[in-house]
Parts: sequence; C-alpha cells; structure tokens
Amino acid sequence: MAAATSPVPKRLLFGPGPTMVEPRVYNALSQPIVGHLDPYFFEVAGEVRDLLRKTFGTRNELTIPISGTGSSGMETAVGNFVEPGSKFAVFANGYFCDRLSEMGKRQGAHVVRLEKPWGEVFDSNEAADFIAREKPAVAAFVHAETSTGALQQPKVICDAAHDAGAIVIADTVTSLGAVPVNVDENGIDVAYSCTQKGLSCPPGLSPITVSPRAVERLHNRKTPTSQWYLDLKLLMEFYDGRKYHHTASATLFYGLREALRAIFDEGLEKRFERHANAHKALVRGLADMGLSMHVKEGHRIPHLNTPRVQPGVDDAKVRKHLLEKHGIEIAGGFGPLAGKIFRIGVMGPLATDMNVHMFLDAFKEALAV
Amino acid sequence: MAAATSPVPKRLLFGPGPTMVEPRVYNALSQPIVGHLDPYFFEVAGEVRDLLRKTFGTRNELTIPISGTGSSGMETAVGNFVEPGSKFAVFANGYFCDRLSEMGKRQGAHVVRLEKPWGEVFDSNEAADFIAREKPAVAAFVHAETSTGALQQPKVICDAAHDAGAIVIADTVTSLGAVPVNVDENGIDVAYSCTQKGLSCPPGLSPITVSPRAVERLHNRKTPTSQWYLDLKLLMEFYDGRKYHHTASATLFYGLREALRAIFDEGLEKRFERHANAHKALVRGLADMGLSMHVKEGHRIPHLNTPRVQPGVDDAKVRKHLLEKHGIEIAGGFGPLAGKIFRIGVMGPLATDMNVHMFLDAFKEALAV
Repeated sequence: MAAATSPVPKRLLFGPGPTMVEPRVYNALSQPIVGHLDPYFFEVAGEVRDLLRKTFGTRNELTIPISGTGSSGMETAVGNFVEPGSKFAVFANGYFCDRLSEMGKRQGAHVVRLEKPWGEVFDSNEAADFIAREKPAVAAFVHAETSTGALQQPKVICDAAHDAGAIVIADTVTSLGAVPVNVDENGIDVAYSCTQKGLSCPPGLSPITVSPRAVERLHNRKTPTSQWYLDLKLLMEFYDGRKYHHTASATLFYGLREALRAIFDEGLEKRFERHANAHKALVRGLADMGLSMHVKEGHRIPHLNTPRVQPGVDDAKVRKHLLEKHGIEIAGGFGPLAGKIFRIGVMGPLATDMNVHMFLDAFKEALAV
Repeated sequence: MAAATSPVPKRLLFGPGPTMVEPRVYNALSQPIVGHLDPYFFEVAGEVRDLLRKTFGTRNELTIPISGTGSSGMETAVGNFVEPGSKFAVFANGYFCDRLSEMGKRQGAHVVRLEKPWGEVFDSNEAADFIAREKPAVAAFVHAETSTGALQQPKVICDAAHDAGAIVIADTVTSLGAVPVNVDENGIDVAYSCTQKGLSCPPGLSPITVSPRAVERLHNRKTPTSQWYLDLKLLMEFYDGRKYHHTASATLFYGLREALRAIFDEGLEKRFERHANAHKALVRGLADMGLSMHVKEGHRIPHLNTPRVQPGVDDAKVRKHLLEKHGIEIAGGFGPLAGKIFRIGVMGPLATDMNVHMFLDAFKEALAV
C-alpha cells in the first residue's frame, strides 16, 4: 500500500506547547532502543532522574518520569494522593485547576474550591483563610496557568497548607525548565510536569517528584489507587528495584536525557535569565503595537504571554494567517477567555531577541490582514 | 555539566519485546514535531487509525492509539468497560490475566476466574461452561500470553460471551502485527495492544479498538470512569472532534505511522507467513539441540517461543552470557515458570532464516558455557 505522503511541515512553535526541539534531541530519539529491563536503560533512567531533581530543585528520591503526557502526571498526583471521601482543596483560577477538580471528583473526593477570575493569582491571606476554613487533606494549585498566563507564587500556598497538615500538589507543566520551581525551598509535596514546554523535548513523558512526607502518605493508604498504570508504589519498585511494571520507552528516555543535558550545558540560571529577557523584549514589542497584557505585571509567566485581543480583531483569523503564511503556531484563549487573548509561548530555542523580533514582525503583519 | 556518556549499545532484541526497529522508523522519529491540534497532526493520526484498523482486522470507528504503553491500553479497556459492582470474568492462564484481574478489582468489580496452568489454553466447552455459570457483564482473555508462549483461540471465548450478553476484552499486546487478530471476524469487542512487539516500533503508544456494541456500553455508563486520562469518551472527542484533551505526541505518531507503512509495504499476509516460517526454523533448531517446547504444538505463539530450561542449566547465566557476549536479549520465565522456560521473541526484522540461525548459534554456545 503506497500512502499519500505530505511532507512534515516545519512549524515555528510559538504556542503554549509543544515547543521547539533542538537537533541534538531529535538525534537522540533515533538511537537504537534497548529493553526496559536492560542495565543500560537503568543507567539512562538514573541520569534522567538526577537531572530532573536539579531542574525541579529537589532532593526527593521519588523523582521519575511517568510514561504518558503531562495530563497523566496530573492524574498520577490526584489518583495516588487524593483518597475517596477525603477533602481536596483546589485554588481555581484557570482551566487546569478545573481539570484537577474533575479528577478529584472522579476519585470520590470532596472537592472544595477557592475561585478567582482567570488571570489573577492568590496571596498569602487568601490562601491561609481558605485552608484554615476547609482543613483539606490535600491542596492543589497550578504554578504556571497555561490557559491564562498567570504565575502563582508557590510558597504562600504551601505554607498555609502545611500549617493545617495538608500536603500540596503543584502543577508545574508549563513552568519546569523555564522558571525556577524550587520544590524543596517552596515546600511543594508533589509536582508534575511535561517534556514539551520548558524542557524543549517532544511530548510523551511526565516528570513527577514526591516529597518524603507525601511518600509516607502513599504507604499509609488503606486501599491501593484505582489506577494500576499510574500507581506510584509499583513505579517506585520498577525504577528503584527493577521489578517489571510496564515497558518504559527507551526512545523517550533518550530524548528527555538529551534535552536535560542541553539545559545543563547552558546552565539553569542562564536559561531562566534568557527566558526573562525574551519576555521583556516581547512585552515591549507588543506594547509598541498597542497591545496590553491580560495578566498584571509581576504575576506573568515569562515564557507564556497573553496579550489581549484588540476590539474588532478576529483572533482565529490572525492565528490561521500565522500558521498558513509563516508556519507559526500560536494559540487563542478558551473558556471565559475565548476570543479575548492570544497565548504566545517563547520557550527554549525560541527565547532569543532575534526570534522574538522575527515573531513580532509576522504577528504585526497578521494583525493587519 | 558534562555527563559521563556510555554509548547506546546495539542490542539484538530476541526477547518478548521491545523488539527490533527498522531504520525508516527511527528516521521518522527524528522528524520535526507539530502541535497536537495542528491540521497535520490529524492527517497523521487519520492514517495511523486507518492502518491500525486493517492490522486489527476491523471496521471499528473507535480505533486510536492511547498515549501510554501497552499496560495503559489494558487499563483503558478495564477502566472504561468494567464498572464498579459488575461481574468481570477472566480466563486466567498467565501473568497478564492476573494483571487484568488486579485492574478489575481496583475498579471495584466482582472478579471471577477460570484457572488453567500457565501454558495451556481454553476450549469452547470450558469457555461456554464458565460463562453460562457466571453470567458476567464483561469477559477478558489474553490472545498471546507473553508469560507462557500460548496462543488462545479468540472465537471460542467471544461466542460463549456473546451468548450470555457479555462483551469481550482481548489483550492483543503480543499478537497484533505478527499473527492475525481478526477483531470483527472473531467478535472481539475491545482489543488493545502495544507498538514494540508485532508492530516493530519503539514503545510509547497503545493501539485500542472498540466495537459499536462496546461504544454503546460506554454511552450507557451511569458514572464516568475514574480515569480522566484514559477516558474513551474524552479521547473520542479529541480524535474525532479535535477537542483538546491531552498533548498527543507527534513524534510517537510519526514512528507508529512509519512502522505501519512498513508492514503494509510488505503485506500483512506475507508478514504473518514470514513469522510462521521463522518459528518453524527456530523450533526445529531448538529440537536439534535437545530442547522441548513448554506449549503444545498448535497452541504456540509463533513469534514468542518458550523452550524449557534443561535440568542443571542456570537460565540467568545463559541470558547474561547472551547479553554480554553477543548483545542478544532474551527473557526468562517468571511466576510459576521462573527458571523453567526461556522466552525467545522472533519478531519483525528478526523473523528471517538467517537471523534465526545466527541466534541458534549464539544460544547453543551460551547453553554450553
């Protein structure tokens, strides 16, 4: 059978993710595979785990990639730590908080939410009041809310939760590798992420890290999680004890290892600085074009920018023009922000002055069409 | 940070999977990614779904890859179709049947089992008696039991189950792409598989296909499955309606598409024949060396061979020698078959006379060490 073949288009991924991948990572993906119980696989997995710990800012022994995308990491966190009948407190200011709530409900938890408009963040008083009132077993928040562009300060939530004996789940899907997460310093108990945003790798794995306090909760569970595939106890036995669980993909581990090596070749601090500088250049350029930002200064995710759509502009038309004429992918808003914001990612290889200016030129043209 | 780098070893994967991958698939894996909502992604996904239908032998509209390994496919099947409090009948003759049972229990089902020694299969009378006695809502069996080398005839189980109004889940993790699965002809309602065995692709995705009758069950569920990530209703909306669910990996889809194209370039029937011939050559060679097969003739998986370990032979030593001296991976038995069988996969590019003889030479040497 000869299939009709269109060539793979070369996109410039200025969306919220996936983002651009460097040639050295693509090269790693094409290395010959080994088995999931091969000594070499565990050598690769060991290096991946070490580099993930440094990227997360943690000494947590239980730091592994889940064999699924970022959403599987979210479900691993909720499914293992939010027990049926327990109280689960969600700081709700965007789409991924809603997804956390939905997963909590499906686990049979009593979900309580503190709501804020999409694009705002929570301060320490709000966090403390909510937690003191609800006394949850587990609290969850989204560090960098991809649907809004807002960056939540983790410490205000973690401090409040720990005062009440709760553990804290942080969604770091959009933050890891592009801004500091500082898991240990902030006191985050469970953080999960993805590979295709701040880590500049194709999607397919979801890094997760779990504090000793949360591991203790795991061991104290009365019934196993309903999710065998995402059961952290079984995954610990696989990665630490080499006891067969599932066929982890050597290909995806090769890619993630190379992406992490590239990050540490540059240096984590330098990488954060590069993203911060690209953010400033982009915001300046957008302001020059008369666009205002949806999120207040100081609360913005530097590498996921959400300028407001100007009155009379059809955002879908702008995005279509960018994709078709320039091969540039950006995203629009959704939910309450549908049609109201653009979502522009400037991550990894794209976070340079040159790329920002190239983008701004194309964006200006598209807005004028 | 300069990491110590050992080069990726070139293994000859004669184990139960993962198995060898052709260069054209590795090449596809290194193609530049596109977003999960990009029109090109859905073009690729559409071709993958078409080719999967042909490989499964089905016209099922709901035929997609799950974004996880084979075990995530198993959990998708159990989590979506085995409802809490319902009766789940498992044909239990190997390790993966035990895993199905465990997943069923975690879903809160009443699990009933028909047991047989590892390596045997079920006939139509046994299937009919068990189903008539138990009247389950769902029955499950493993088509090709990787832990034993036994190939179950699907039709005897499907006929019995349908007579009692049950739907049937078939584990085709080790069968798809190497022997006929014939989903429609056999009457299988839900079949899941992996990419790294009969499809000769790296691991990372789990193809699944669902009959219209099973889709109807899905729509009649009273409560959503506890598993958001593996919820087939949401996945249908993503693949058919392009409604965002998770960030499916363009990389893994490129690889799977190329592996499927390679299969249809050869022709499915020719591929089955090639595997059958390689099986005969291997069994003949093993018999010449005095090894007997654990599974009775006629019930054997052609591409996953399980010769018995001869008395006095240390199977772990043999496997270690093969890996270290020849870069050849094979597997041992586990559970009740630990130390009693070898598990030798002859799949995909390895299923040729030349490769079988090369393997037999190395195996003979290893047994004599």
